[in-house]
Formats: sequence, structure tokens, C-alpha cells
Amino acid sequence: MGVVVPLGQKGPAGASLRPLMKLVEADMERVNSLISKRTGSDVRMIPELANHLINSGGKRIRPMLTIATAQMFGYGGEHHVTLAASVEFMHTATLLHDDVVDESNMRRGKAAARLLWGNEASVLVGDFLLGQAFKMMVETQSLEALAILSNAAAVIAEGEVWQLAAAKNVSTTEDDYLSVIRAKTAALFSAATEIGAIIAKRSGDEQAAMRSFGNNLGIAFQLVDDALDYTGEEGKLGKSVGDDFREGKITLPVVLSYRRGDDAERTFWRRTLQEGTIGDDDLEKAIAIMRKHNALADTIERAAHYGAMARDALAIFPDGKHKAALQEAVDFCIARVS
Amino acid sequence: MGVVVPLGQKGPAGASLRPLMKLVEADMERVNSLISKRTGSDVRMIPELANHLINSGGKRIRPMLTIATAQMFGYGGEHHVTLAASVEFMHTATLLHDDVVDESNMRRGKAAARLLWGNEASVLVGDFLLGQAFKMMVETQSLEALAILSNAAAVIAEGEVWQLAAAKNVSTTEDDYLSVIRAKTAALFSAATEIGAIIAKRSGDEQAAMRSFGNNLGIAFQLVDDALDYTGEEGKLGKSVGDDFREGKITLPVVLSYRRGDDAERTFWRRTLQEGTIGDDDLEKAIAIMRKHNALADTIERAAHYGAMARDALAIFPDGKHKAALQEAVDFCIARVS
Repeated sequence: MGVVVPLGQKGPAGASLRPLMKLVEADMERVNSLISKRTGSDVRMIPELANHLINSGGKRIRPMLTIATAQMFGYGGEHHVTLAASVEFMHTATLLHDDVVDESNMRRGKAAARLLWGNEASVLVGDFLLGQAFKMMVETQSLEALAILSNAAAVIAEGEVWQLAAAKNVSTTEDDYLSVIRAKTAALFSAATEIGAIIAKRSGDEQAAMRSFGNNLGIAFQLVDDALDYTGEEGKLGKSVGDDFREGKITLPVVLSYRRGDDAERTFWRRTLQEGTIGDDDLEKAIAIMRKHNALADTIERAAHYGAMARDALAIFPDGKHKAALQEAVDFCIARVS
Repeated sequence: MGVVVPLGQKGPAGASLRPLMKLVEADMERVNSLISKRTGSDVRMIPELANHLINSGGKRIRPMLTIATAQMFGYGGEHHVTLAASVEFMHTATLLHDDVVDESNMRRGKAAARLLWGNEASVLVGDFLLGQAFKMMVETQSLEALAILSNAAAVIAEGEVWQLAAAKNVSTTEDDYLSVIRAKTAALFSAATEIGAIIAKRSGDEQAAMRSFGNNLGIAFQLVDDALDYTGEEGKLGKSVGDDFREGKITLPVVLSYRRGDDAERTFWRRTLQEGTIGDDDLEKAIAIMRKHNALADTIERAAHYGAMARDALAIFPDGKHKAALQEAVDFCIARVS
């Protein structure tokens, strides 16, 4: 494993998340202590299970986006910290439910919570975190932020159901697939950045720019994730290479390979992903077919396209360290594949 | 089955939900069409699964409580309809997740959604309904109602996790058990009635009275449900008699029987509920032990106690048809056991 997918001309390979992390460091410390406080409960299983996942080294990119956006707009209040923690709770709740739905065994390089505490507890602690997320949002008294985040919650779940219903259809179109990831990933990225503009009381145009930035970054992020599932290094990935394949998930590398393939290859995709009959060599074979059709490299190319749209969405803002750090974060998300 | 538990002096056996239903009828039609509209989605599985449960003949007592409370206070706006639909969505989401957690096969006399569409879809459609519930609440622009309902969402999930962790402990105390049902049932009843007072802008005392009414009614309702699981008639119950027993759920009839029992009986409870070793005659034997110790009748007595508190909570309000209908609803909830 550990295949390097060539990035082409679209993103500098040396891009780093560090400038962004540096800018948001102080506020993120407050986000982290709020997260830790709000997972507290007299019911011991709740903080144990929640912290197992929350402290497992996720990059917390979504709350960082909320903080960075609010800072870029010179926001001087406290609500960005509360909303950033809400966003991370919504994300964590989704991960807990996803792992149950997908029967995943690993998450961020550790055993999935559902293996240690059971599916039941994962569902319920996810519900608890979602409840806490909404409680925190309400505390900010921002009905606009609440409208955006509650809409995102419904859209994410809708996208997950869609994916569940479409899971076993190898002839899913690229458009349909994009609709799924717009819902299940981009909606929360988009909400995370938009609410930063909203609490800073920026104009409608500026809110729209941040919404667009988050949306396109989210799509790029998910596409890269889809490629990484076939090309990543296990240690970095925090999950097993080939998880999507074993779970019969139709992602863009599969969509492209199926469309570009011959009859024998299409039979292979149907057998492995639709019927779930997977032999020992099939993952390697799947990767070989993907390479033959440039499906992995083109997935990254597509990601770079959405990344470019994300960067352009920020163009209306004056240059500054926050804008630069956010744009570099886009490059990082795409470059992490190498 | 179909054992009649004597009610003692606490509640008139002829009590009916009809007066309440009559008062809220017109508004409930609007609630129902809003519910139907808001389960709509291009993802067909969502309305199919949601409507399977929503149209399965639940009494919709929670949204009726919100409507009746708002009407009693002369509320003239539209938000009681929106909030009532939100409350029913929160309840429906909880049922979907509960059936997954409890591995239940029946719900309201029909196959549980998880049997027809799978656990995965039940989790995700529950999440979708929760998202829609919050979207609707936000539309009312009432931050106070949002605070109460988001808090209820977190408290409900916390109670469910607690019950999961305590599920197999037959020596649970009555106090601990009450804490669980305060969270998992009474919190939503209480929120449903409190928000009716809030949107009608009533005083803090009046809000507190409605909160107390809902809370105590919810406890009474759950205790009766617990008794019905051992004494109900299958057709009326909409689930199998003995479900709680087979799932190893520790409810008040068990708590009382265990405390009042001898060593042989305690061994029986440990074997059946903690260890899950259940033979063909064990449900009958469990009911016989409960009868011997008056555990079912006393569970109803306890319910009647909370019912009395609920009725008293309304005493500060002038007499009128809404107050009378709400008080009769309390009697009905207790009398439905017979």
C-alpha cells in the first residue's frame, strides 16, 4: 500500500495545516476544554465513550474553520468557541452513527467505539452529543447560526440515508455521488465556515463566500478521503486501507472505474461491491483496475478542481494571514494524499 | 394475558382522552399535515420508513399536550403547531433508535421499522427526523423553546445510556429507576407542556406549573407502560407482552419484586434478567411472582401518586374545559391499564 498518487499542477505538495493551527491555537484550547466539559455526565459511559473518539487525534478541522473564519472577520465575542465545539460534536455524533451503520471496526487507528461499548451505546451517545451540540448553539442566542446548523444536521442524515439506499449500485453516476458527499460531508464544512461570518455580522455576500468556501473544501476533502481509502498508508490513515471496498461503498474511484471499464471489469465490480463476494486478491485487483483507468489520479484531479473553487471563493477578501492560512489548508487537504 | 390491575381509589376508570382530543382536533390536523410535509424527502426511504412508524396509530399525546397548553393560555399564533410537530419528531426519532438499541421486533402492533428497512436506516432516519425537529423549532424563533427542547434531547439520550448501563442490574433501586424514566420519558412530556406556556408568554410560575404537570404525567405514563408490559392485552398494547422481560429490562415491577422476594425468587430474577437465560414458562412465573408481591398493583399505585401530582400542578389555573380535559387525560393514562 502507500501508493503516491501524482498531484499534477493543482496544489503545492509542501502545503501544511500548520499556519492555520497556529492562528487558531489559543481559541482551540478553549474549544477543547469546552468539548471536554460538555462530554461530562454522571453516566460514566458517556464521557468514556465520547472521549475515546474525541481524543483519538482527529485534526478538528471543522471547528478550526469556524474559529479561523470568525477571527478573519475580527469577531470579538465568545460565540465562535461555543459554535466550534457544537460543530465538532455534530461531527463526532455522525462518526459514531456511521461506524454503526457501516459496521466499521477501526476509526482513527483505534478500535471503533462500537467494538468496545457496543452499537447500542454508540447510537445513544451520538444522540447525547447531538443534544449537547444544540444546547450549546442555543446558548449563543444566534437564531441564524441555529438555522444553518440544524439544516446541516437534517441534510447530513438525508445524505447518509441516500448513500445507504444507493450503496450497492455500481452504476451510480458521478452527479449522484457528488450529491451524496455534498450532503454528508460538505454541508457541515459549509455550515462551519458560514456561521463564522454570521456571528461576525458580515454581509450576505461575505456569508455566501464563506459558505461556498466550506462547501467546496468539503467536497475536495471527501474526494481525497475516497482516494486515500485505496492508496493511503495504514498508519497515517487511521483506518484500514480498503474499508470502503469491503463495505461495498461506491465512491468516485469506483464510479469512474466502472464507467471506463470493460465487461469483465464491470462484472468484477458487481461481484465485489454489489454482491459482496470478495476474495483475498480482490482489493489489489480493484486498485490495479483503478490505476489502469487513472481513476485514483482523476479523483484527486476532481478534488483539486473543488479546491480551486474554494480558494477562489476567498478572493473577495483582502489578503491577510487568515486568508492565506485558509487557502493553504485547502492545498493541504488535497496534498495529504501524497 | 389481559390481567386487570385494580386501580384503587386514585382514578376514575371511565376516564377518556376524548375531551382532550376534541379540543385539539383542528390544530392537530394542522400538526399532522406539517408532520407529513416534513417527512418528505427525495430520498424515498425516508418518508417510507418515517411514515410506517408515524402512521401506525400512536396517540400523539405529546403534541396534543403542547397544543392543549397553548390553547388553555389563549395563545393566538402559529408556533404551537410547529413546536408540537417538533415534539412528535423528537419522540419518533427516539422510538426508531430505541428499537435498534433494544432489538425490538414490534412497535404499535406492526413490525418495527428496523425489521423492514434495517437497523442502519432506522438510525439514520431517526437522525434526519431529529434534524427536522430542530429546523422547525428554529423557525418559531423562540430561543426559550429551543433551550428547553434541546436540553430535553440531551437528557433523553443521557437517560437511555444510563438505562443501557444499568439494564442488567436487578438490584437497581426504585430511586435510580425513577431517575431513568424522568430522563427518558418525563423530560419530553415536561418540555411539551412547558413550551406551550412559553410561547403564550405566561409567568415563570405558570411555566413551572406546566413543566411540573408534564413531568409527573410522564412518570405516571411510563410506570403504567411498565405494568402493561406484563399485564396488557397484545392487541391494545401494540407490542408483545413480556418484551421488557425478554430484553432484560429492569422496570419498577421487577425492582419491587426483587426487593420483596426471597432468595429463590432473587435467583430467578438474576437468571432471567441478568444472565438472560429464559425458559418457556418463565414469563408466566415472573408475572406470578409479581402478583404475589403486589408489584404490578403497586406500580399502578405509584403511577396514581404521580398522576395526583400532575393534577395538582394545574390547580393554580382557573377552571375551564382545557384544564378539565388535561386532568382527565391524566386519569386516562392511569386507567388504560384496565
